[in-house]
Amino acid sequence: MNSNRPGPDRWFQREGLALLTDFYELTMMAGYFKYDRLHQQVCFDYFFRALPPHAGFAVFAGLDPLLDYLEHLRFEADDIDYLRGLGIFDDNFLEFLRGFKPHLTVRSVPEGTLVFPFEPVVQVEGDILEAQLIETALLNFLNYQTLIATKSARICSAANGEPVMEFGLRRAHGPDGGVSGSRAAYIGGCAVTSNVLAGKIYGIPVSGTHAHSWVMGFDSELEAFRAFARHYPKKCVLLVDTYDSVTSGIPNAIQVFRELHAEGVPVRPAIRLDSGDLSKLSKIAHRMMTEAGFENPLIVASNDLDEDLIADLKRQGAKINAWGVGTHLITASDAPALGGVYKLVAVREGDAWRSRMKISSNVEKATDPGCKQLIRYYDAEGHPLCDLMALADEACPASGSLGGRSRVFPHQHVHVQGAASSQLLLETVFDKGKRRLPSQPIDIARSRAQAQKEALAEEYKRLRNPEIYRVFLSDALGSMKDRMLGGIEPM
Amino acid sequence: MNSNRPGPDRWFQREGLALLTDFYELTMMAGYFKYDRLHQQVCFDYFFRALPPHAGFAVFAGLDPLLDYLEHLRFEADDIDYLRGLGIFDDNFLEFLRGFKPHLTVRSVPEGTLVFPFEPVVQVEGDILEAQLIETALLNFLNYQTLIATKSARICSAANGEPVMEFGLRRAHGPDGGVSGSRAAYIGGCAVTSNVLAGKIYGIPVSGTHAHSWVMGFDSELEAFRAFARHYPKKCVLLVDTYDSVTSGIPNAIQVFRELHAEGVPVRPAIRLDSGDLSKLSKIAHRMMTEAGFENPLIVASNDLDEDLIADLKRQGAKINAWGVGTHLITASDAPALGGVYKLVAVREGDAWRSRMKISSNVEKATDPGCKQLIRYYDAEGHPLCDLMALADEACPASGSLGGRSRVFPHQHVHVQGAASSQLLLETVFDKGKRRLPSQPIDIARSRAQAQKEALAEEYKRLRNPEIYRVFLSDALGSMKDRMLGGIEPM
Repeated sequence: MNSNRPGPDRWFQREGLALLTDFYELTMMAGYFKYDRLHQQVCFDYFFRALPPHAGFAVFAGLDPLLDYLEHLRFEADDIDYLRGLGIFDDNFLEFLRGFKPHLTVRSVPEGTLVFPFEPVVQVEGDILEAQLIETALLNFLNYQTLIATKSARICSAANGEPVMEFGLRRAHGPDGGVSGSRAAYIGGCAVTSNVLAGKIYGIPVSGTHAHSWVMGFDSELEAFRAFARHYPKKCVLLVDTYDSVTSGIPNAIQVFRELHAEGVPVRPAIRLDSGDLSKLSKIAHRMMTEAGFENPLIVASNDLDEDLIADLKRQGAKINAWGVGTHLITASDAPALGGVYKLVAVREGDAWRSRMKISSNVEKATDPGCKQLIRYYDAEGHPLCDLMALADEACPASGSLGGRSRVFPHQHVHVQGAASSQLLLETVFDKGKRRLPSQPIDIARSRAQAQKEALAEEYKRLRNPEIYRVFLSDALGSMKDRMLGGIEPM
Repeated sequence: MNSNRPGPDRWFQREGLALLTDFYELTMMAGYFKYDRLHQQVCFDYFFRALPPHAGFAVFAGLDPLLDYLEHLRFEADDIDYLRGLGIFDDNFLEFLRGFKPHLTVRSVPEGTLVFPFEPVVQVEGDILEAQLIETALLNFLNYQTLIATKSARICSAANGEPVMEFGLRRAHGPDGGVSGSRAAYIGGCAVTSNVLAGKIYGIPVSGTHAHSWVMGFDSELEAFRAFARHYPKKCVLLVDTYDSVTSGIPNAIQVFRELHAEGVPVRPAIRLDSGDLSKLSKIAHRMMTEAGFENPLIVASNDLDEDLIADLKRQGAKINAWGVGTHLITASDAPALGGVYKLVAVREGDAWRSRMKISSNVEKATDPGCKQLIRYYDAEGHPLCDLMALADEACPASGSLGGRSRVFPHQHVHVQGAASSQLLLETVFDKGKRRLPSQPIDIARSRAQAQKEALAEEYKRLRNPEIYRVFLSDALGSMKDRMLGGIEPM
């Protein structure tokens, strides 16, 4: 049915995604339309309030798919027909949707950037109708991919440089859960995926060899291994646990590698353990294989791995040198949602922005008002020192001594010494409806994440109880928030 | 770009899903092709070993999308080009893929059926190449949708007949996580979704009114409420917690409902609480609204709800009569993956099936061998009594006294009295490549689940520590498994 070249663009654009939104976005749009607020200019921030459990940072992902969506966002004839059939929208509004084309401005940190709670990671500015419509899809793309990129970074950190293979498709939440999850896992640091479609769409290296069923489909395990190794001498990782790893799988694998070596076939002895005690079995396998004369065998482990189990297996000296991770990675199983939100922070009145704030009985949850900029400061060694949230039109120091306010208690002053350099994190990626940041190979985002993880001081990278990275408000933003919290404005 | 009529078919077929598979499925396929095992006939079972936490049953979902996928499964030219570029597959195999069209036979329980651990919920029979290719996509569709339908059934059970609204799209795992999650949530019992695209594709009722941003976009909350209620008098649920529910939101809502009633507009007083203590606030809101003369107000609650919190709020007498559930439903947050697997159970040799079994050091995890049938027995009142797994070609009693073997200890005999009637649960839904079960409105699956949940005895429906429903093996299947466990065959 489709024979065009593939690409992320087509994967995300199938079906027309204009209706990939919560119904209330449409009722609000129609309300703004009705009350002639079409061109009311607003600014929304995307941010999250809490990192995933035990995480010291998040890896931002999902921007490129979001930009693809924005670029192609149109209501198709059948979308309009469907909405008309609901009997709630009037014809004028439906006709308006027919010609709808967003002309928003979007600023964002680049994909692969390390980000922290409450930072305005993405800002959307423009007509309230448009900014409101895209809320749900924006949250859908960014929350999930940032969640998985972050989980991937943690798992790769536990693997400590050894390759992590993402095997999650069968437990992912639908086809996109798999495809966009593979994308995010790769940005976060995974080396390969088993997901062939993700490989095709994004150019992620794919890998995989055989399953238990391959072994069970032959009359004996030895015959199955021999057949596989002969056909794929360069890609041969034998799965040894179909019957019993120690008494059957590993000896059979050794025999096949010996046979091939005797024939001069340069196959690297490699096995995969997928059940049983991975520490103990890997040590036994390593001993059996080295005693058989195979130096440095590749021993892949899989089976319900996550960062904690990998770290624990390494602590026990497991002889594993590559890690296959499925369910826990692709679902971020310990907390399978990032609670990113999209909040109105300013409304244009005449020539000026008027800041808005959602009050909450919990001060921590009150939003940070106003159109903002986000600056990262570095120490003399290039380690990130702190991040500053400031009003968009403020002049902020590029280095030196920094002052500001606490987010939660904006009357409290904060001081940071020794900023050697700084970087503005937000870039304009969509400008009045025009895409400014073209689609990029995801290796760029992956390399960015890699470099930023390396630059980050170790105290923020512990798997448990990491230090909290400092993010504070400029004096101007903090004092404005303090006034607004005090009830001076607005209501 | 697309202006054809939509449908589940198009949503699942975009991009061509032949490559939505693990790479090892393709390496195994190419291996079978190489060794002339193309037409080796096999039988695979789809089953899961454990229910989600605390669940007494699962609601099977995801079949229709699976059949759509199977019906359209072809390798496109660009898929072949991509695979060629990997440099691992030879031209003969790639040419074979170009003409590939599966002609499998699939038997399945109908969507919406209640199912239990180790039951062969879906069986796939046919050429090993084809049966192997589809493994990953089958698991992807069935695991996720069954997981969410089951979670939805638990949440609806806690809501005890009051409507549950699925609001999960913004926290779902990508667009499909949202769209197919909404589908599964509706099958499991949810009344409506906020996801407009799911509404369009599947005909699920959609709902939603306004967000905090609507309120913040006006100069006052009162003005915002008035504007909304006037425009949507029939669809008006006012979100009262933007500033403060008790001192601002609820009084402003009451004032607006009074104004509209004074003008003769028949708006039903309805509010939504989205933060704070939902039990206490709902009681306050109910009292304020009834004191204002509004009988039977609609009080919707949302904010991190799941089945446990809903049950607890009801226990405290919260005055809530509709429930909006997002994150915990759409991600099944307490255990976000169903560990369904797809295992080879038989291989055709000449005219006969030869059963296969994956041995494990854990007897519970050893697969149940052979091509099977699945029978549900009912007592005289129509309550499900037990399920029997038997060999496909066995004659089994339709009622009366039943005998069989334990799954885990197949030498142990099991007896069940009083079976008044029975039902064969597996139907042929795909017959040698031809779809036999046409796509059906999902209300059919939803009604089936509803009827089966009602018929199930209460001991299996508790939210905590439910009774374990009996599933056992026929004598013939049990004694075969016992022999195979004993190592008599195969290896």
